[in-house]
Amino acid sequence: MSAVTETLDTSISPTELAHNLESLPLAERAEAWLALSQKERSEALPYLHDEIKIALLDNTSADELVQLAENMEASDVADVIDLVSDNVAQEIIDSLSDADKASVEASLDYDEDTVGRWLKRDVIALSANRSVAQVLRYIRTHHLPTYTDQVFIVGHDKKYRGAVALASILQAEEGEQLKELPLIDSTTVLSPEMSLADMTMVFRRKHFISAPVLDEHGTLLGRITADDAISFMQDEADHQFMSMAGLDEEDDLFAPVVSSSKRRAVWLGINLLTAFLASFVIGQFEAVLQEVVALAVLMPVVASMGGIAGSQTLTIVIRGLALDKINDSNIRPLLVKELGVAVLNGILWAVTVGLVAFWWFSNATLGLVIGCAILINLLAAAFSGLLIPVALEKLKLDPALSGSVVLTTLTDVIGFLSFLGMGAWLLV
Amino acid sequence: MSAVTETLDTSISPTELAHNLESLPLAERAEAWLALSQKERSEALPYLHDEIKIALLDNTSADELVQLAENMEASDVADVIDLVSDNVAQEIIDSLSDADKASVEASLDYDEDTVGRWLKRDVIALSANRSVAQVLRYIRTHHLPTYTDQVFIVGHDKKYRGAVALASILQAEEGEQLKELPLIDSTTVLSPEMSLADMTMVFRRKHFISAPVLDEHGTLLGRITADDAISFMQDEADHQFMSMAGLDEEDDLFAPVVSSSKRRAVWLGINLLTAFLASFVIGQFEAVLQEVVALAVLMPVVASMGGIAGSQTLTIVIRGLALDKINDSNIRPLLVKELGVAVLNGILWAVTVGLVAFWWFSNATLGLVIGCAILINLLAAAFSGLLIPVALEKLKLDPALSGSVVLTTLTDVIGFLSFLGMGAWLLV
Repeated sequence: MSAVTETLDTSISPTELAHNLESLPLAERAEAWLALSQKERSEALPYLHDEIKIALLDNTSADELVQLAENMEASDVADVIDLVSDNVAQEIIDSLSDADKASVEASLDYDEDTVGRWLKRDVIALSANRSVAQVLRYIRTHHLPTYTDQVFIVGHDKKYRGAVALASILQAEEGEQLKELPLIDSTTVLSPEMSLADMTMVFRRKHFISAPVLDEHGTLLGRITADDAISFMQDEADHQFMSMAGLDEEDDLFAPVVSSSKRRAVWLGINLLTAFLASFVIGQFEAVLQEVVALAVLMPVVASMGGIAGSQTLTIVIRGLALDKINDSNIRPLLVKELGVAVLNGILWAVTVGLVAFWWFSNATLGLVIGCAILINLLAAAFSGLLIPVALEKLKLDPALSGSVVLTTLTDVIGFLSFLGMGAWLLV
Repeated sequence: MSAVTETLDTSISPTELAHNLESLPLAERAEAWLALSQKERSEALPYLHDEIKIALLDNTSADELVQLAENMEASDVADVIDLVSDNVAQEIIDSLSDADKASVEASLDYDEDTVGRWLKRDVIALSANRSVAQVLRYIRTHHLPTYTDQVFIVGHDKKYRGAVALASILQAEEGEQLKELPLIDSTTVLSPEMSLADMTMVFRRKHFISAPVLDEHGTLLGRITADDAISFMQDEADHQFMSMAGLDEEDDLFAPVVSSSKRRAVWLGINLLTAFLASFVIGQFEAVLQEVVALAVLMPVVASMGGIAGSQTLTIVIRGLALDKINDSNIRPLLVKELGVAVLNGILWAVTVGLVAFWWFSNATLGLVIGCAILINLLAAAFSGLLIPVALEKLKLDPALSGSVVLTTLTDVIGFLSFLGMGAWLLV
């Protein structure tokens, strides 16, 4: 228990508090959650991953949720509302002031993976006629939201007219009007329907501190700030990394054994089907395996080399797609390059494995057969490693999630077919 | 070519320019690079990945490098100097003004994966006695660096005394002195020796816009800003993702075929050794394989289920280690949970595969043997999936890079040993 007390030191930031909670096993986490003040809970909650958030919300009474919501931003309240039962959601909404209710409902109008759900409404938006002195007075008497690097200019109709850097304002004469200052030379405004993935791409490329969000009529709705971009980027990278092992929904290191087992069982089941497909292919060659047992001994080598080479191409392509570096105009040169790599490595390892097989089983034909099978499998692996994720992306499927299963199935089947097929032809 | 002209539109940011260059095949990239103005080249260069940067620098004359360096920040010049030959490096250093030379050499004092190399020196650092009016005048007459959210307070000795938020300054009365304003309540200062991985962890947890960097005497050296944190986070996530396929140095989608083949050959060679080890294990059972050919047909199923289950645990643990969520106090509960998942899934799939094998080969003992082998392999996979990356991390080796090879070796060997061993014992 001393570790818990230490890691939940209250001088830490809400993000750290969330991080520490997520690092605790279930029982200790529940205890630590109860030991937090209401303020700490409402601050840490938005930074917890969904799976963990849901578990903690399930153990929180409706009354308390209403109190937690009071201290949270509209987008975070919307997120909580999405995760609790309809009754509790209604109770929370009913408890909000009219202004807060409008903000929360505006957030709920957008999907949880779009900008509209997460935008911040605390913007400084002023008319172009304001003088620098007026702007500075406005800031002095109001509130300067964190991550404010620009002041937005809006018309009477709340339509967005542009933005002036805070730096320009601080360097201007007091009498100058906003409209006399240089507008920020940036045409990038976000739309509320934009996906979080596209939004993080904008921040990665443009080095923004904040970016305005406009609706389709050009009305300023709010802004997205770099700290949000950092969180979503991390989530995206986590998601992609975990997806490669079929773990796209495994947020919680300490998820309950039963729910974790169920999720992973799906992945193991899909993999089992592909493994049985490979076994079925091998089963077609029972006669030759019985006669030339060396084929059984060596067959994992062929499948494994194909799988590894294919996963290298697959990984590069998935990353390239995620970073938007692969498009229709460069797929061809990329395929040529990957096939070139496959030819060179195919020849190198075909010869190496061929010689080892020849030396091990004193059978030159066996060496030839396994060499050819490896070359064929490495070429097929390069083709599939590139084309499978590109095709999945076009089909709007997640290449990180399904790419590796499809690829392994192909390299297994092609590996066993070519090796055992040639073996049956040349070795019996 | 029209795609090139379009994507290299000059109104785009330097990061986008770098991104577009990286998306081009080698020949077109070289052409596009030559078509850029000197200014664009010096702006885009810092955002290119090392592999691509080196190739472009190799084709650039020393004279031009000297000119490019004139427009670059000290840390970026240091990076170029690290990547070019000693002669060219000396030419660049000699061409710098004394002040620039001092900054570049200060950057070069630190490793390229530490904060000291990349810190920005453009800080606002003032004495605590300055009034708000003086600070505002200072900002008006000097330069307000981007990502300035705080003004640093330093003593006569340049020692760091704390920081005041720009927001506090803008909301204070003109006559107030900096020392009367609230200091930012943050004890997190960075050290120049801190690794970039640790630095990004700080930004992820603390939502900083900028953070001061102090040397061991408490002297303010500069700051790190959120845009740098975003870049390094992306690089780190890429690195980890690519490492899982042994591609930790493959920055360039369009790397030359020969150099790419060489790098990947190393990984394929390591994998071949583990595949041969598996073959060697199978080779010990030639007699039983000849007698019961069903064992040869089914053996990929055992190895594959172990490999997939193990890679799920491995992925979770590697991610947990990278996010600093796994520590000595929670390894035990995590192991208990992963073993629990392995027991449940082990039983489920042992029974399923056992029944299929029984039905397929009409052999109940075979069903029993494969069922037991799968259960054993899934338990071993959970153990190794957790303990291998933890051990590699303690040995200061990259778990993402070597974890999967070690794991697959283990699940292959244990899978084949248990399946064929029990087969030899019970089926002959």
